[in-house]
Amino acid sequence: MGGPELRRDPLSGRWALIAPGRTARPGCFLSRPEPTPETPEEARACPFCPGREDQTPPEIAAVRDIGSRPDSPGWKVRIVPNMYPALQECPSVGEAEAGSFKERRPAAGAHEVVIDSPRHDLDLDEMPLADAALALGQIRRRVAALSGRHAYVQVFKNRGREAGASLRHPHTQITALPMVPPRVAEEAARFEAWHDGNGGCLLCRLIEEESASGRRLIRLNRSFAALAPFGSAFPLETRIVPLRHAGSFSEMEEQETEDLASCLGAVLAALRRAADDPAYNLVLVQGPAPEALFHWHLDILPVLVRTAGFEWGTGVHINPVAPEEAAERLRRAGT
Amino acid sequence: MGGPELRRDPLSGRWALIAPGRTARPGCFLSRPEPTPETPEEARACPFCPGREDQTPPEIAAVRDIGSRPDSPGWKVRIVPNMYPALQECPSVGEAEAGSFKERRPAAGAHEVVIDSPRHDLDLDEMPLADAALALGQIRRRVAALSGRHAYVQVFKNRGREAGASLRHPHTQITALPMVPPRVAEEAARFEAWHDGNGGCLLCRLIEEESASGRRLIRLNRSFAALAPFGSAFPLETRIVPLRHAGSFSEMEEQETEDLASCLGAVLAALRRAADDPAYNLVLVQGPAPEALFHWHLDILPVLVRTAGFEWGTGVHINPVAPEEAAERLRRAGT
Repeated sequence: MGGPELRRDPLSGRWALIAPGRTARPGCFLSRPEPTPETPEEARACPFCPGREDQTPPEIAAVRDIGSRPDSPGWKVRIVPNMYPALQECPSVGEAEAGSFKERRPAAGAHEVVIDSPRHDLDLDEMPLADAALALGQIRRRVAALSGRHAYVQVFKNRGREAGASLRHPHTQITALPMVPPRVAEEAARFEAWHDGNGGCLLCRLIEEESASGRRLIRLNRSFAALAPFGSAFPLETRIVPLRHAGSFSEMEEQETEDLASCLGAVLAALRRAADDPAYNLVLVQGPAPEALFHWHLDILPVLVRTAGFEWGTGVHINPVAPEEAAERLRRAGT
Repeated sequence: MGGPELRRDPLSGRWALIAPGRTARPGCFLSRPEPTPETPEEARACPFCPGREDQTPPEIAAVRDIGSRPDSPGWKVRIVPNMYPALQECPSVGEAEAGSFKERRPAAGAHEVVIDSPRHDLDLDEMPLADAALALGQIRRRVAALSGRHAYVQVFKNRGREAGASLRHPHTQITALPMVPPRVAEEAARFEAWHDGNGGCLLCRLIEEESASGRRLIRLNRSFAALAPFGSAFPLETRIVPLRHAGSFSEMEEQETEDLASCLGAVLAALRRAADDPAYNLVLVQGPAPEALFHWHLDILPVLVRTAGFEWGTGVHINPVAPEEAAERLRRAGT
């Protein structure tokens, strides 16, 4: 076996990332993924806390107090390589195999972790607004730095064990991929098709209509709207969209970064109150290339029901909460 | 709000099934899905056990002892409507809404539950082979009965709470949908494309190649092969394929039903030993219509890692176990 590689299933057409190195990850391999709360021992040994900088690979970037040295305390945001990367700069290549159905490629890319703040127990919606904006600004810089060198940059946050987080300390992951992933390619094609058929941008138009109707509108500030998507796949799913048309997260301006921190913080706080502090995945979806017709957005996917046989067999998610009701709950919980 | 409906997300193109009625399902709604083991109280109150037939809707079909009456004990397999159906025969239609992005349709269809056997605690691989074959035979009959009246019939089994099962008593679910789901339409297109480009059937050819190589072959009997798919999305994922080309599960013959029970039982027993009795989803994938170029298969998807932000954002699953290693583990655990 070589390094991580992307392989395609010839029947479904789906790609998978085969990454044997990740079996060493805490709580990952071949045992039931139990959502037990963090133990005091785990908290004391947290590799993301100040003073334990030697437990991560050397930092890629950080926002630091003047005079503090790399890989030592004194930082506000810290970016390090993932210890168990799903994608690597130069993965070794696995043994070739004859046959018709062996569509594969090395999983060449990057896998980084942004430690959102020095505080072990403050989520994005709990920290001071300026600190959240600082973390988002650093993510934006890394996205910009990686975008030129890779086919796609994917940012996500897993919060809570049910959502796949192996560590409690708030962090965000940035991956860079050697191909535009299918989920993004399909969305890009839909932006193109809308443009060809109707002119303009699909999401700009959707923001207009949803703001006018208000039924699925959760929040609105000067730069962002938070919506319950009409076709929500998950209960209380929320989509945060920039009002200014932009294809990539890296195009965000200083003021917008603050406004995003404010909108995101308010939505996450409302979600916490509306659904008993749920686990969630936060996913950035952005254009596959600077010139692509696209309008980036952040999707918040709470983990409140399980994805099961029906979903895997059909690709259709059963969602027991209508988006109109989700929006109302989140509006009420947001005041 | 009307009955359940299918809605499409205009950005990603994905369909979701909005089914508010299902919030009443045990353990479903807006609380963390905890994978606690079944309590003794839950076991004693199981609505699928003999003597509690009045706790399900009236039965649709059953295999019964001579002289026993419907909805009373004396059955070996029992099929009932799902108490919390995601799809309904004639769903009421929700309020129409103006706007460009409201692709929706009533979730007209069926949602049935096959109670595999009277035994509360025997899974498919633990019950006598003849009983497992009996359950599979009844599923085959229901698939045949529903296929003529609906666009697609989807069969699945969720085993274990981590896999979405709300009840321990072994059961299988059959749903009928008013549209061919995207995941199936895409696979059908790939069968077509292979046929146009190469002639013959994609999966027949794949079985040949995988049997010859043997690297991902887990089991083989006179009618079925069990393979670790080359592009496996989940650790220890296993695909069971009929050696005889057939588009639909309903075309299975008596002897094949027994051979499937044998192959499936052996694979599930090996999985139990190889991975500490994991939860899993079992998913039937079959042709969208009798005349479609297709070759049906059953996919077993163990729940050993979490689907998280990377997967939702890209559509690509990170799998820490190479399929070649998975096949070896399952072969070793199967003896």
